[in-house]
Amino acid sequence: MTEASLDVVGIGNAIVDVIAKADDAFIAANGLVKGAMTLVDMDRSEALYGRMGPGIEMSGGSAGNTMAGIASLGGRGGFIGKVRDDQLGAVFRHDMRALGVRFDTVPLTAGPTTARCLIVVTPDAQRTMNTYLGACVELGPEDLDEDMIRASMVTYMEGYLFDPPQAKAAFRRAAWVAHDAGREVSLTLSDSFCVERHRGDFVDLVENDIDIVFANHHEATALFETGDDLDAALDHFRRRCKVAVVTLSERGAVVVSGDRTVRVPAEPIERLVDTTGAGDLFAAGYLFGHTNGRDLADSLRLGAIAAAEVISHVGARPAVPLTELVRSKGL
Amino acid sequence: MTEASLDVVGIGNAIVDVIAKADDAFIAANGLVKGAMTLVDMDRSEALYGRMGPGIEMSGGSAGNTMAGIASLGGRGGFIGKVRDDQLGAVFRHDMRALGVRFDTVPLTAGPTTARCLIVVTPDAQRTMNTYLGACVELGPEDLDEDMIRASMVTYMEGYLFDPPQAKAAFRRAAWVAHDAGREVSLTLSDSFCVERHRGDFVDLVENDIDIVFANHHEATALFETGDDLDAALDHFRRRCKVAVVTLSERGAVVVSGDRTVRVPAEPIERLVDTTGAGDLFAAGYLFGHTNGRDLADSLRLGAIAAAEVISHVGARPAVPLTELVRSKGL
Repeated sequence: MTEASLDVVGIGNAIVDVIAKADDAFIAANGLVKGAMTLVDMDRSEALYGRMGPGIEMSGGSAGNTMAGIASLGGRGGFIGKVRDDQLGAVFRHDMRALGVRFDTVPLTAGPTTARCLIVVTPDAQRTMNTYLGACVELGPEDLDEDMIRASMVTYMEGYLFDPPQAKAAFRRAAWVAHDAGREVSLTLSDSFCVERHRGDFVDLVENDIDIVFANHHEATALFETGDDLDAALDHFRRRCKVAVVTLSERGAVVVSGDRTVRVPAEPIERLVDTTGAGDLFAAGYLFGHTNGRDLADSLRLGAIAAAEVISHVGARPAVPLTELVRSKGL
Repeated sequence: MTEASLDVVGIGNAIVDVIAKADDAFIAANGLVKGAMTLVDMDRSEALYGRMGPGIEMSGGSAGNTMAGIASLGGRGGFIGKVRDDQLGAVFRHDMRALGVRFDTVPLTAGPTTARCLIVVTPDAQRTMNTYLGACVELGPEDLDEDMIRASMVTYMEGYLFDPPQAKAAFRRAAWVAHDAGREVSLTLSDSFCVERHRGDFVDLVENDIDIVFANHHEATALFETGDDLDAALDHFRRRCKVAVVTLSERGAVVVSGDRTVRVPAEPIERLVDTTGAGDLFAAGYLFGHTNGRDLADSLRLGAIAAAEVISHVGARPAVPLTELVRSKGL
């Protein structure tokens, strides 16, 4: 096995976020599922956008946010995801490359536009997401840069990739290529509704193909149908995969790996503003630590710090260089 | 004269901002004019964007920001400006209408793309702007909704309109229509370099066509070539137009009108983050006050509050409803 030239390659839906504030009445009036990621078609996306307040646009996407976090921590990253050759696609590509993340997936030149996620942030800082997948539905195995996957210590994929049908095939191929090269494969379960949509696939993956899995409380218990019993879900993880990192919001996070269990408290924050990207950035911190020789506890702490930064402002990517933030906290 | 159905109609360049942080070394290395608005062509815009860090996209444009502020204060507004029928044009249109601002200018269906302003914010919170005017160069007198102008108490225009050649004709026509209907006309001088480019036109306008002029210290002294002598510039204004509002950054603002001179201190802020939009929002507060029967002092105070809000966060439009902010300050 040659030395890895990248820490992590992320594969995910390449999405531009449109973020607006709204109250709970807006959530109710528009039949939104608060706190969830809901897939919408173009017509629904347009109709909802027409009713939303003024917004800001920022590159997003779960794995995209994670790669932004890893780059901000000083990690070496790559990204694979599908945009179109339109203005928002150019924004997504620019932002990824400006962070130093390798991103060479060929954009669509026709067909659906670059994906857009309409994010409504309520006064409780909760985010409700409505995603039009657009060009992402065209991501397939032919888009995989297999050399980049072989060159990365970890191939990190979002569970959301199971929504566009061809991306699922790309997911399985990427996992095979990575393992064949002696690398690790990591998955985030993404969203409890996403887990409901793809439970069979996810359980099978966690058992057979995934080395490091990320989930929050809801996703973990949804995966193994353990109701409210988080400990039961953790036991499942312990038996089925090498490492499972479970985030617990204000209660911090826990990692289980073989007979080890390590916990970290949530990093204190001045003000909770927008929870979008919390899980994505936790994964960024953990994976940066893991691929740079840190132990479970330090990796968890890095995850907690990165997540705390991103929920302290609007938007799902770091607003300050995480290298400096982490250094200021003595890590 | 029939009763006005709108407080203010703004006419300006319809621009989407791309905002990124950078240090002074970036300003120097790229030959940028710190603190100024510089016009760039498409090639230069693309090259500069390629070197900028990851950004956020937000609707902007000087008069556009002012109309956003007036709407956020509860005022009745309209906007006239030119976008193309592309993704960023749709963002600009959405954001304007979502605020309740009437905006019906027909977009271009071919030719240059929607205008983009690359904004670099340095650690001192100063902003340096590089504008590709794109579709804005096609704004002409035929785009004026003259009924809307006649229905507005004030027609407010940005000095930047003198950069695209056809917009200048639209500017003069709009002023004529407004005055013919017995309404007021207001102008912001926009930028001291813009004043240098169009000094003759601006002096002539201030003397003959403008009722309420907005400027900062640099623009005021540049207009009348009074060097550093602000008082001399204020005397010029006093003799030549009905009302002149001059903003003085951390020293507040002053309005001169006939023999009256009223000053307001700067509104205290917790943290200076990004000065983009300070002048635009000062104008918003002042014009909202003016069109809603407030006196000079209250109108200035409304300007100071709106400006203080917008420089406390990234981006040139209000992040909170200004009605609530103003109410919390007892106005």
